[in-house]
Amino acid sequence: MKKVAVIMGSDSDLAVVSGAIKRLKSFEIPFEAHVISAHRTPEAAEKFSKSARNNGFGVIIAAAGKAAHLAGVIAAYTTLPVIGLPIKSSTMDGLDSLLSIVQMPSGVPVATVAIGGADNAAILAAQILSLSDEALASRLEEFKKNMASAVIEKDKKLQSEVVDI
Amino acid sequence: MKKVAVIMGSDSDLAVVSGAIKRLKSFEIPFEAHVISAHRTPEAAEKFSKSARNNGFGVIIAAAGKAAHLAGVIAAYTTLPVIGLPIKSSTMDGLDSLLSIVQMPSGVPVATVAIGGADNAAILAAQILSLSDEALASRLEEFKKNMASAVIEKDKKLQSEVVDI
Amino acid sequence: MKKVAVIMGSDSDLAVVSGAIKRLKSFEIPFEAHVISAHRTPEAAEKFSKSARNNGFGVIIAAAGKAAHLAGVIAAYTTLPVIGLPIKSSTMDGLDSLLSIVQMPSGVPVATVAIGGADNAAILAAQILSLSDEALASRLEEFKKNMASAVIEKDKKLQSEVVDI
Amino acid sequence: MKKVAVIMGSDSDLAVVSGAIKRLKSFEIPFEAHVISAHRTPEAAEKFSKSARNNGFGVIIAAAGKAAHLAGVIAAYTTLPVIGLPIKSSTMDGLDSLLSIVQMPSGVPVATVAIGGADNAAILAAQILSLSDEALASRLEEFKKNMASAVIEKDKKLQSEVVDI
Amino acid sequence: MKKVAVIMGSDSDLAVVSGAIKRLKSFEIPFEAHVISAHRTPEAAEKFSKSARNNGFGVIIAAAGKAAHLAGVIAAYTTLPVIGLPIKSSTMDGLDSLLSIVQMPSGVPVATVAIGGADNAAILAAQILSLSDEALASRLEEFKKNMASAVIEKDKKLQSEVVDI
Amino acid sequence: MKKVAVIMGSDSDLAVVSGAIKRLKSFEIPFEAHVISAHRTPEAAEKFSKSARNNGFGVIIAAAGKAAHLAGVIAAYTTLPVIGLPIKSSTMDGLDSLLSIVQMPSGVPVATVAIGGADNAAILAAQILSLSDEALASRLEEFKKNMASAVIEKDKKLQSEVVDI
Amino acid sequence: MKKVAVIMGSDSDLAVVSGAIKRLKSFEIPFEAHVISAHRTPEAAEKFSKSARNNGFGVIIAAAGKAAHLAGVIAAYTTLPVIGLPIKSSTMDGLDSLLSIVQMPSGVPVATVAIGGADNAAILAAQILSLSDEALASRLEEFKKNMASAVIEKDKKLQSEVVDI
Amino acid sequence: MKKVAVIMGSDSDLAVVSGAIKRLKSFEIPFEAHVISAHRTPEAAEKFSKSARNNGFGVIIAAAGKAAHLAGVIAAYTTLPVIGLPIKSSTMDGLDSLLSIVQMPSGVPVATVAIGGADNAAILAAQILSLSDEALASRLEEFKKNMASAVIEKDKKLQSEVVDI
Repeated sequence: MKKVAVIMGSDSDLAVVSGAIKRLKSFEIPFEAHVISAHRTPEAAEKFSKSARNNGFGVIIAAAGKAAHLAGVIAAYTTLPVIGLPIKSSTMDGLDSLLSIVQMPSGVPVATVAIGGADNAAILAAQILSLSDEALASRLEEFKKNMASAVIEKDKKLQSEVVDI
Repeated sequence: MKKVAVIMGSDSDLAVVSGAIKRLKSFEIPFEAHVISAHRTPEAAEKFSKSARNNGFGVIIAAAGKAAHLAGVIAAYTTLPVIGLPIKSSTMDGLDSLLSIVQMPSGVPVATVAIGGADNAAILAAQILSLSDEALASRLEEFKKNMASAVIEKDKKLQSEVVDI
Repeated sequence: MKKVAVIMGSDSDLAVVSGAIKRLKSFEIPFEAHVISAHRTPEAAEKFSKSARNNGFGVIIAAAGKAAHLAGVIAAYTTLPVIGLPIKSSTMDGLDSLLSIVQMPSGVPVATVAIGGADNAAILAAQILSLSDEALASRLEEFKKNMASAVIEKDKKLQSEVVDI
Repeated sequence: MKKVAVIMGSDSDLAVVSGAIKRLKSFEIPFEAHVISAHRTPEAAEKFSKSARNNGFGVIIAAAGKAAHLAGVIAAYTTLPVIGLPIKSSTMDGLDSLLSIVQMPSGVPVATVAIGGADNAAILAAQILSLSDEALASRLEEFKKNMASAVIEKDKKLQSEVVDI
Repeated sequence: MKKVAVIMGSDSDLAVVSGAIKRLKSFEIPFEAHVISAHRTPEAAEKFSKSARNNGFGVIIAAAGKAAHLAGVIAAYTTLPVIGLPIKSSTMDGLDSLLSIVQMPSGVPVATVAIGGADNAAILAAQILSLSDEALASRLEEFKKNMASAVIEKDKKLQSEVVDI
Repeated sequence: MKKVAVIMGSDSDLAVVSGAIKRLKSFEIPFEAHVISAHRTPEAAEKFSKSARNNGFGVIIAAAGKAAHLAGVIAAYTTLPVIGLPIKSSTMDGLDSLLSIVQMPSGVPVATVAIGGADNAAILAAQILSLSDEALASRLEEFKKNMASAVIEKDKKLQSEVVDI
Repeated sequence: MKKVAVIMGSDSDLAVVSGAIKRLKSFEIPFEAHVISAHRTPEAAEKFSKSARNNGFGVIIAAAGKAAHLAGVIAAYTTLPVIGLPIKSSTMDGLDSLLSIVQMPSGVPVATVAIGGADNAAILAAQILSLSDEALASRLEEFKKNMASAVIEKDKKLQSEVVDI
Repeated sequence: MKKVAVIMGSDSDLAVVSGAIKRLKSFEIPFEAHVISAHRTPEAAEKFSKSARNNGFGVIIAAAGKAAHLAGVIAAYTTLPVIGLPIKSSTMDGLDSLLSIVQMPSGVPVATVAIGGADNAAILAAQILSLSDEALASRLEEFKKNMASAVIEKDKKLQSEVVDI
């Protein structure tokens, strides 16, 4: 199976990004995680992105906050699908990160997920890889069923809770 | 090659969505286009989404405006990657569409591109399909090179234009 | 009397939604509460909505956060009035929920109340049901008078507090 | 059948509000339309709202722009369901109208529809009245089916259009 | 001297509004404070506003949050200058209050101060009353000088603090 | 009677500001109009503001767009009431002007009216001056009555128009 | 004198950026203009930025729209001051460009001017270069005086225009 | 070397602004820090700005919140480059400060950095001064290398942390 790269612009993003790593592990998807900054280590970003396809990666998740250029900078150097994960910073409630990631110009897309949506970034990567991996596709179906079951359980539990409101 | 589905919530979205269709054609990617409304034909949305993987689709592009639920509704019924394309409507400058599409809850991601980013929706679909299609990967590399060449040409042209400013 | 359905997209919404349940109880309006997710249990949403009118419901309150599709998905399957209750999540201060709920396309309305306005969702449901229920209409008039009295009491109390400011 | 009141804050809102009037006519719902300003004719607003229930009204639609107080002012004087219709004015793209209408304090709800959503305001009124009117309920079901059919027709039409893109 | 009315939509606004009351006291401006709700006690709002000029008021400060209609409702019934004080509530960071207060339609102005700007509401009231009160004008000049002196003192104090940074 | 100063930051603002001038003329309020820029002619702003009270002015209206500092700069130099009129420029729909004018720090208020609300700026000035001018107070009452009558006329006219919708 | 680089992300930005070029010419500041895209020609961006200081540049102006990464990408590769010029595109009124440019992470600043503020980008570049160029400093003082004179002229002209309003 | 002025609108801004002072010290750049308020001590702002160039300053950093006029007011009186540092206050998440600072009209630029970006304000000042100071240019290059090294170290550290997620 192709690997997923999980790139974060700062180690302070790990608190959020760890959600993606956990999910990739639960799906048994091979991955590498790196701290690479579009602004502080631009050459590392370039080098990683240019060689990513040849190095066995299939999807790149890029997490960053504020003027979040990381996903776009990576997408500039690769034709692999790049998933952008906006991180909320201390001001603007994540809107700056979201717009910096999603509003990419024509020709260089970034597949953007919700602000802080680390779990979904990993699931989206899994969905992409599942196109040529039946076992992973099955795991995604299983995951979807489990989510539904959990909601149904919560609905049952709610019935007794409602009495006491 | 797996097909791409291009679903729009209203035929009035075609003016924007046609950009995605053109790009898919230029990449020689097989596709189907449909008008399916999450709110007006929810059962068609369900039926299409549930059977999409088995019907040979690899990626679904869903374009909608305002309270743009289409991509999320489709993603609820499939484990295929779903690309959300926010359409700007007459108010709120597309922000409503963007937030309605990108802010998906944990478990059901939508790969969101820029407001009106039809071209990028198709390129992202191509990038996803290219993971198991060397020829398409080559076409994407070619496309990337052509984009660069076009910018370099424009830079040359600018030099004479600047004189007259 | 027709019943009110109180549907929440996640059990984590109960902290807010319980305000609606309390108010319905105080008005002696029969209700059912359910956790149903537009994205995780879409078939439950469809099944509930399609049969709601025949099952004796008169109004459906749908509470959800982020890309809050629940109210719209329910409204797609029923001609009952659907009240949308936007829940504030960890980013965007509820604006994403509000726009996702209120900006519905032509043909499928959702009656949206304030972000976190659980109390008002229940009162609106009561107002709707009061059109064919004189006793409930009287209770609403009584409630309105009590609100006014409470404000007048607070105004009196303020007079002594102001002295010490 | 109870009547619907369609109140607009300014005659300049009629261009949008006429969409609601057309829809009410098509549903054969009796209505009255009035220009009443919360700020310029507050006493007319009070008088109308206080007597609306006794005068045979079941729902009040209130359309206004900018600091759109009309729906809230009417809701202050009646326990009838009040539908707020935000009108986009020359600045702020309707966001000011939307927030002024939807963010009502606890105790006095306004059922808010999309910015410029006149059609939906009327359909919501119809849904409310349909709770005690089987014929109107049938007309709403019919309307819903027709909407679905129209989308399906458009989907068919799209198939030939796509060829030429 | 004419009195200032300080009206708040809810007693929970007092924490902010007390800043205005303190300032009025420091300027020795006679005032009355009241809890009057545009939505819960609309008749009290009407009655107060209509008689305010004859009752010896010169300026009315109206403080409210969310869909903050209080200032506009008061301004509808009086030709006295009305100062609107937006209160930040639990969502939208005060933007809803600000827009609901400031975006008044032509003919009925509200003099809006900053979100939470209680002190400034009182100072503005003092400035208005100072047009026909020389003593108050002198107190305002004195206040302005004291503010300047305080800043100059802080600048001096800063010089030693900077050394330790 | 004290004069009103109408200051605009740029002569391009005159298209909007002329609405204030017309209204002042209709109320027979003496005024002066000036182009003074906070950023381009700061010394003119200072000189005008410092001497305004002594020069017979009672109220200053300051209109500006973008980073609209004019009203704040004037308020820094005078204890007269300063009315801020936000002008919409080519981006941000006037939100930048509004926030730059209304969000003044404690101690230096600006009485802000709606974006583009030139008419209301003049009416607010008239309301302020009316506190010591009975004739002007009467003209304002008359103006308020005429506004109400105009709405009532429009309501009558609407009745025939509605038939044809 | 050191040169100014004027880099635009797309030749479509020239309509705005030409304002900066005109101003640089009027100040007799040597410059080069280039079309370089952060996303389409990232290697050109890197190459230009890395060698800019050695190639005689003193300031770099970078103009881009939407997810405007250009200024940040350039700043990643140089220690020269980089001026960011946000360009308004077809949605979001320039807010996306502004936030993408200004919200740079600690360590890599971009000196951001107003949305569409091409003239100011050039003037800021001139101010920076004037620190070691007395003649340019004089030209800036002259420019400032001329701006003031122009405003004073417009104020005089206004006096006659006001009569006719 | 020319000095940097660090001006803050209020001593409460020092918590943020101290970051700029620390950075200037680390770069061994001479500076002065002052509390000067555009609204409370406008004459001090004028006096400081007018004489800044002659007093040996090369760059002025101006930090302010809310309706943040300080940077613009300073820029009105000098042709030195002025760096604007938006401070987040209790409402609006810093957007009011940002827009008040960055949206300057043509002719009077302010070089705006991120909300709360004190560190970057100082680095930008250093970049500007480095144009005529080789030693400072070297320190900036060194600083840039150290930033890159720190990121690379964090990337190494991450490798072991990822194992435990």
